[in-house]
Amino acid sequence: MKLRELLSTDVIWMDSDKKNGDIVISSRIRLARNLLDFPFPDQADEKGLAAIRSSVLESMNRVEYLKKGNQYLLEDLDPTDRRFLLERHLISHDFVHSSRPGALVVGDREMVSIMVNEEDHLRIQGMESGLDLMKIFGFLRVIDDALSRELKYAYSSDLGYLTSCPTNVGTGMRASVLIHLPGLVQTNRIEELLGSLQKLGMVARGFYGEGTRSLGDFFQISNQITIGVREEEIVDKLLRIVEQIVQTERATRGEMLEKNRLEVEDRIARAYGLLRHVQKISYGELMEHLSWLRLGLSLEIKMQVTYHQLNQILLKSQPAHLDEKEGRELAPLERDAIRAQTIRQLLG
Amino acid sequence: MKLRELLSTDVIWMDSDKKNGDIVISSRIRLARNLLDFPFPDQADEKGLAAIRSSVLESMNRVEYLKKGNQYLLEDLDPTDRRFLLERHLISHDFVHSSRPGALVVGDREMVSIMVNEEDHLRIQGMESGLDLMKIFGFLRVIDDALSRELKYAYSSDLGYLTSCPTNVGTGMRASVLIHLPGLVQTNRIEELLGSLQKLGMVARGFYGEGTRSLGDFFQISNQITIGVREEEIVDKLLRIVEQIVQTERATRGEMLEKNRLEVEDRIARAYGLLRHVQKISYGELMEHLSWLRLGLSLEIKMQVTYHQLNQILLKSQPAHLDEKEGRELAPLERDAIRAQTIRQLLG
Repeated sequence: MKLRELLSTDVIWMDSDKKNGDIVISSRIRLARNLLDFPFPDQADEKGLAAIRSSVLESMNRVEYLKKGNQYLLEDLDPTDRRFLLERHLISHDFVHSSRPGALVVGDREMVSIMVNEEDHLRIQGMESGLDLMKIFGFLRVIDDALSRELKYAYSSDLGYLTSCPTNVGTGMRASVLIHLPGLVQTNRIEELLGSLQKLGMVARGFYGEGTRSLGDFFQISNQITIGVREEEIVDKLLRIVEQIVQTERATRGEMLEKNRLEVEDRIARAYGLLRHVQKISYGELMEHLSWLRLGLSLEIKMQVTYHQLNQILLKSQPAHLDEKEGRELAPLERDAIRAQTIRQLLG
Repeated sequence: MKLRELLSTDVIWMDSDKKNGDIVISSRIRLARNLLDFPFPDQADEKGLAAIRSSVLESMNRVEYLKKGNQYLLEDLDPTDRRFLLERHLISHDFVHSSRPGALVVGDREMVSIMVNEEDHLRIQGMESGLDLMKIFGFLRVIDDALSRELKYAYSSDLGYLTSCPTNVGTGMRASVLIHLPGLVQTNRIEELLGSLQKLGMVARGFYGEGTRSLGDFFQISNQITIGVREEEIVDKLLRIVEQIVQTERATRGEMLEKNRLEVEDRIARAYGLLRHVQKISYGELMEHLSWLRLGLSLEIKMQVTYHQLNQILLKSQPAHLDEKEGRELAPLERDAIRAQTIRQLLG
């Protein structure tokens, strides 16, 4: 199972040297692309889907950044593998349950990944640490251009890229950031913020995407509108909005510390003490403590821990990550114990 | 303020090398004694009380174990000092508020202490670590005999020692142990035990004596009946009952560990992690964690902590102990922060 290799690789978003990297964990952009000569996956039959997949996977071998990537056929991935990839944001909820001849291609450090035969023929995703949408945008453009020379894309000069779902037509682009907002959550200002985002054509989601709840004060913010705007506009607008949120969050943290320094320091220190010694812990509880620790680092409170360690824990303590490591689906209590062990090891 | 010396002395009950010392923290015996030629303190006037005090304190200078003891006059003790002494079980609640010419004599390591002009002319107390009532009994008998040669005790050959309150008449003796019963508390068997004690003529109290609630699963168990029994019988009966409770508690701990080892280990490890890092903490919360840590040591769970450290924390984190250390009455939040600091220091 080649997937296990991913377990020990350091993904791109774990770097933490970016400006505002204490608040914005990672940025992602995905492009929806379809082939001109084939029906959308929903309308294609098994044989058609297999032909699409062959064609796409073959073309990858001629594209820089992708030709060295790992290719996984969906039918080779068992349920644990799929949940594992979902937790890494490499595949979607739909793909977890899909019985189509799909595929996943994962480039070096997961900076780029492509789902084949999900809702669209290609879902090309770029990821980076911090608020670095422009870098991803540039990088994805190179890959997209290269692929477009290999594959005939379904494109209309009026509408733009044609996609399976009308909400993606146009740029076929969704840009999103994973952002940590404990200040706004603790001071009960988060609802207001999320409400105002909607008016700006942005949408906020929980940790695992659409319909999931926020864990550990982490939120995903992304654009809702893909049509009638240029790609640069989407990226630029999201950038400006997130920079504004970062400013507000930072100011709120300052106020919190000023008003309740002891309380805040105590919560952070307790989170640290707990995670260093815990013998069993749920992922939900873990996320609460991780949130305090990340806040603590951001507030420059002295602790024997780094952002990189926190990011490692965030990723590797997820349920399917633990199952994947152990090579089987764990019972809940057993998993909570192995999670605790994993955390203690990662904290060194 | 000579009291501050007590802050840094290691009291006798902090030793922890006794058999069953993991469950029984300390034993105490106190004797109520009165002088023949004086009215009981309640009936005496200021002048009479002063005369009693002089006479008693003077006699101490001729008694081994007491002549090197520290003598404190009640009027020299401010409210913080008195709360401090109460927390050390050296004076009673009544003595905290008393405006009589009283005194306190404290021997080496607090093994023996005497209140003068509390409810009785003399309240002689002996303390030891673990379940060691016999040792105290022997030790107090030596002191009591020596004092009886210096002072004329009020004694009736029919009734025994005469005391201010009829419930103490006879032996004037109360024997008690401080016992830690987390197993019985966690398994909801404690109420049953406390109920059965009453039928045996014993009484269970909270951590700070009569009318106080249990903190951290610590209980004081003592004899209720002082008359019509010999002193040896009181001691022997309490010993046998406590040994029985210790057996039950130990069996219960074994069951807890067998049924829920991970849960128990997790609670203990969390308590340890919290106390190592906490920045503010109430005494009530602290006691809960101390209870888990003491249980952990008893269950031989690996931790960087000793009974002696736990006993130090138990004693020195009490409110008035912190106030005494800082030399002033602290505000609650400030006290919680200094408590946290004290705990971290004592854990090393």
